[in-house]
Amino acid sequence: MTPLIVDTDPGVDDAFALAVAALAPEVDLRAVTTVHGNVAVEQTTENARRLLGTFGRPDVPVGRGAGRPLVHLLGRRPGRLSGADVHGDDGLGGRSGDFGPPVDESELRAVALMASVIEASEEPVTIAAIGPFTNIATLLSARPDLEERIGRFVLMGGSIAYGGNVSAAAEFNVWGDPEAARRVLTGSSVSTTMVPLDLTMRITLTGDWLDGLAATGPVGAALASTREAYLAAYSARFGHAAMAVHDAVALLEAITPGTVSTTPLPVDVDTSTGPGRGTTIGDLRGAEAEATDGARPVEVALDADADAVRAELWRRLSG
Amino acid sequence: MTPLIVDTDPGVDDAFALAVAALAPEVDLRAVTTVHGNVAVEQTTENARRLLGTFGRPDVPVGRGAGRPLVHLLGRRPGRLSGADVHGDDGLGGRSGDFGPPVDESELRAVALMASVIEASEEPVTIAAIGPFTNIATLLSARPDLEERIGRFVLMGGSIAYGGNVSAAAEFNVWGDPEAARRVLTGSSVSTTMVPLDLTMRITLTGDWLDGLAATGPVGAALASTREAYLAAYSARFGHAAMAVHDAVALLEAITPGTVSTTPLPVDVDTSTGPGRGTTIGDLRGAEAEATDGARPVEVALDADADAVRAELWRRLSG
Amino acid sequence: MTPLIVDTDPGVDDAFALAVAALAPEVDLRAVTTVHGNVAVEQTTENARRLLGTFGRPDVPVGRGAGRPLVHLLGRRPGRLSGADVHGDDGLGGRSGDFGPPVDESELRAVALMASVIEASEEPVTIAAIGPFTNIATLLSARPDLEERIGRFVLMGGSIAYGGNVSAAAEFNVWGDPEAARRVLTGSSVSTTMVPLDLTMRITLTGDWLDGLAATGPVGAALASTREAYLAAYSARFGHAAMAVHDAVALLEAITPGTVSTTPLPVDVDTSTGPGRGTTIGDLRGAEAEATDGARPVEVALDADADAVRAELWRRLSG
Amino acid sequence: MTPLIVDTDPGVDDAFALAVAALAPEVDLRAVTTVHGNVAVEQTTENARRLLGTFGRPDVPVGRGAGRPLVHLLGRRPGRLSGADVHGDDGLGGRSGDFGPPVDESELRAVALMASVIEASEEPVTIAAIGPFTNIATLLSARPDLEERIGRFVLMGGSIAYGGNVSAAAEFNVWGDPEAARRVLTGSSVSTTMVPLDLTMRITLTGDWLDGLAATGPVGAALASTREAYLAAYSARFGHAAMAVHDAVALLEAITPGTVSTTPLPVDVDTSTGPGRGTTIGDLRGAEAEATDGARPVEVALDADADAVRAELWRRLSG
Repeated sequence: MTPLIVDTDPGVDDAFALAVAALAPEVDLRAVTTVHGNVAVEQTTENARRLLGTFGRPDVPVGRGAGRPLVHLLGRRPGRLSGADVHGDDGLGGRSGDFGPPVDESELRAVALMASVIEASEEPVTIAAIGPFTNIATLLSARPDLEERIGRFVLMGGSIAYGGNVSAAAEFNVWGDPEAARRVLTGSSVSTTMVPLDLTMRITLTGDWLDGLAATGPVGAALASTREAYLAAYSARFGHAAMAVHDAVALLEAITPGTVSTTPLPVDVDTSTGPGRGTTIGDLRGAEAEATDGARPVEVALDADADAVRAELWRRLSG
Repeated sequence: MTPLIVDTDPGVDDAFALAVAALAPEVDLRAVTTVHGNVAVEQTTENARRLLGTFGRPDVPVGRGAGRPLVHLLGRRPGRLSGADVHGDDGLGGRSGDFGPPVDESELRAVALMASVIEASEEPVTIAAIGPFTNIATLLSARPDLEERIGRFVLMGGSIAYGGNVSAAAEFNVWGDPEAARRVLTGSSVSTTMVPLDLTMRITLTGDWLDGLAATGPVGAALASTREAYLAAYSARFGHAAMAVHDAVALLEAITPGTVSTTPLPVDVDTSTGPGRGTTIGDLRGAEAEATDGARPVEVALDADADAVRAELWRRLSG
Repeated sequence: MTPLIVDTDPGVDDAFALAVAALAPEVDLRAVTTVHGNVAVEQTTENARRLLGTFGRPDVPVGRGAGRPLVHLLGRRPGRLSGADVHGDDGLGGRSGDFGPPVDESELRAVALMASVIEASEEPVTIAAIGPFTNIATLLSARPDLEERIGRFVLMGGSIAYGGNVSAAAEFNVWGDPEAARRVLTGSSVSTTMVPLDLTMRITLTGDWLDGLAATGPVGAALASTREAYLAAYSARFGHAAMAVHDAVALLEAITPGTVSTTPLPVDVDTSTGPGRGTTIGDLRGAEAEATDGARPVEVALDADADAVRAELWRRLSG
Repeated sequence: MTPLIVDTDPGVDDAFALAVAALAPEVDLRAVTTVHGNVAVEQTTENARRLLGTFGRPDVPVGRGAGRPLVHLLGRRPGRLSGADVHGDDGLGGRSGDFGPPVDESELRAVALMASVIEASEEPVTIAAIGPFTNIATLLSARPDLEERIGRFVLMGGSIAYGGNVSAAAEFNVWGDPEAARRVLTGSSVSTTMVPLDLTMRITLTGDWLDGLAATGPVGAALASTREAYLAAYSARFGHAAMAVHDAVALLEAITPGTVSTTPLPVDVDTSTGPGRGTTIGDLRGAEAEATDGARPVEVALDADADAVRAELWRRLSG
């Protein structure tokens, strides 16, 4: 069984992703680490603990991670969408109190917990990172010797041609810590799959789908219960009631490599403080592309069979 | 008849565009101004003079413009595609000597010539800018009082979701002077239509099409003669022999408003010195979009009937 | 007599500088051009016209220049000192109405006026630029052919080791248009002298000195009358009532080369949008300095005999 | 006794600093951590181990730290001074082989070693960081809970009015990882003293001084032996044979608070990719200063009694 660490900022779609990870028989979920993002790290940590309790996984250690980006506190600009606008003040659509009971928090902080899992594993470890990438960048900086024992990064984040969701150009997770994203995407030798908005925005769940899921059992009901503000935000923006569960797509790929179709692209991250801050710049020019300084090829998930992904989600969450 | 100024850096596709402008009965081509870009301004000026001679327009004054960008000389980085790689060392596929005879160069430099045309015109003037936007930005800075007498900017440049051609993110004309592009796109009140790569890359001409054009008469033959390196560059990159004539699409729109379908988008330009330099950031988020500081709505040409555009080009150039 | 153009944003210290220029027998003041800066260009233009009237120079044409920076409108950030805080809402300490009568405004805008003066002059023209450098950068972009007929730029602006006055790092004139400053300082071949805060802050005038000047005649009285807010701002910041008249130092150097002692330094200008925006980076490393890309040697006025400069100011303004 | 961690990239002046720390009776040197900088981290780690051996401190654990900056690999630009130009290819003036025997390397990497020391200490720990600040920034990101148990940062780095040494504007340690420097200087609540070039360049040691030190015993002889390339670089640049030992000044302050005189200044770090990259921007505007976003007051060592500092160095190193 593939050893797996999930680094997360729950978050509604993180909850779906954690359910996938916690319930998957094919993987060995060895740790969950938390990070600032959709809400503050204190809340994302509590949410992760409650979600693992709900999913019956008190055995999984939860390590608290970074409460802020590596370098710049530029995230809370006026007019920017905050995570709470979509995920609710508590990150779980106002329903976090219904989850649980919370599992214990590890005595190890996120980076130390990840390092200890990697050191203890005989198999290469997959890390699925579905919040801002602060913890992962910090791990790479603190423990470069462990790179070779990380089998794969599967990252939910970025955008190639779709545009941004939190700014005109930037996707929420990358924008939450562009410097960390640049380190993770360009500054390691770990095999990396990036799942961008281009794909995740195409795999949406309707209210009816969620109603159906709610009827399948307690996990489905718990997940579906978080949707209110999230679904409303999508409805308001796109005019129909269907929401993307970005992080869950990344987790499916982490668990079953090949779920998504990837294209190798040199990717760089804009760390300027101008309007492009947080943009993931993928070089689509093909064989003639001159790689931007520092960019390295990343497997970018630009396509998938949306119906098959939805069906797989249903299968795993309705069990 | 709409008074028209064309600001250009010929350039193979500029030649097609100038032919459209010089031969169009609906517009009054009052001046051509030149700028650095595909090749140096000395050569683009000579090319403009020769092209107007070929098209039988010695009456059109040619004003020499800027030989470098406004602020930064960052254009000639190692590994970047230069204009000469596509347009040939002389900007016209090695055939510039076949054009002409050259018309006279105006005693007025580009900005003064544009200003004098605008001042003398009773009608609002359309400016089609199909090279780096240095002259236009300089005009706006030198003569803000003339803004209200400019009816429209039609700009070939930028990219919304297509990606770049000269770098991973940047289109050639914007990248040639990002600061000027930012001024023109965000810093005036002139009604502005931007014709980006997203559209122009879809309207390509095959070798057969060009052979056919060559047979229609001397103008078609002259234009078709410039294609060798240009078509080869497209073939090498895309695997089939068909080339985009970006600037000509913009000129058709300048002459016949509505040729292309536009979407109003807030657009900003990345003037950082990082990997996003020269990116046009269009905000696709619709009604909920929070306009980036300084961005203003621009009409972005994201769609057109490619066959109809090609047919219109044929009609005008084969006359 | 050296032909002189003064580009200015009056402004209290600009008034002193214009008096120097208007009254100097050694130079031929051929034009005054105006720019945004201490207050809006409408007001700086009116002030320039009134000041020339007061100084008895209705023969000098006044050309209105740029009302905004070339590229970015980043000047009016919350918490930043504005020019009006020091120069008063009218730019002349609330006393602009006492000056005049205003001379006529030229029909030529600033850039065209500068160009016409340079073209008409048989001698190389000195340009003293004592506001943001928008007009000068625009001139260089519009008329590169005139560079060789400009004998010298004397620029009040920047800071080498002193730090900034409008931000931690930036001096007011450079910060008012960093892109223009970069073009002027790095992007021309014109012999350039930069008079930075390092020097101008050492040449201050006390209230007593100004009282004395006021008693010498109408020009002295008019200049001294503008001081209230300006002197108060200096008192509040430095704890003693003495004010720097930056622009007047630059004008003395423009009129009498050698007034200040200069050091040749490669200078670059920070055009980022971060905390260093508008910094003039002078390379003090001497012979081993590796010139920053694009930097070129500028004569930087780091020293002068402050008492001699004050005496010279007195001599010229009390006449 | 104050518990002390030294984070270092030996380096000639680091060697002097480590000697001060290793021999000081007032402090308890609990760990030495290493970082990229003057030479690669493999070499700085070996050098640290050899230096502690020479100084008779096999009890001090040495933790290997980061081999590269957090985010950007921009350090090795053409024309930039590298550390090896001054410190020799081995970082110790070609004499590293004479030091030792090397002490053991800790099984803990730098960040984990620092964390374990801090956790185990009942007293607040002082961290003296005298190389690029990558390890310190990583510690802050990995273990924000430990901030309150760090008594003080003493940082050798930056420049306020002196200018840069590695670029026109940037000091070597900050330029080596500007993003890390920004995090450490602006993104923690730890009491911080920064020892910039403004001070360290004034405290130089002559060849005679070093000859004298060499005669005092094996430690003095070992330190003095490293000087050749270092002293030659200073001679070539400044025209007299006297070299600054930057890091040793910081260590004296770490051991004896008050050795230097400090001024509280808001400090920000330029993380742009332009010519200001790596600049420490200190706000000298005093009470009226509007703090730059994110800047916080740092105690900046702008003054010291140079003779007293030299005498103290002599006293400690000649013992």
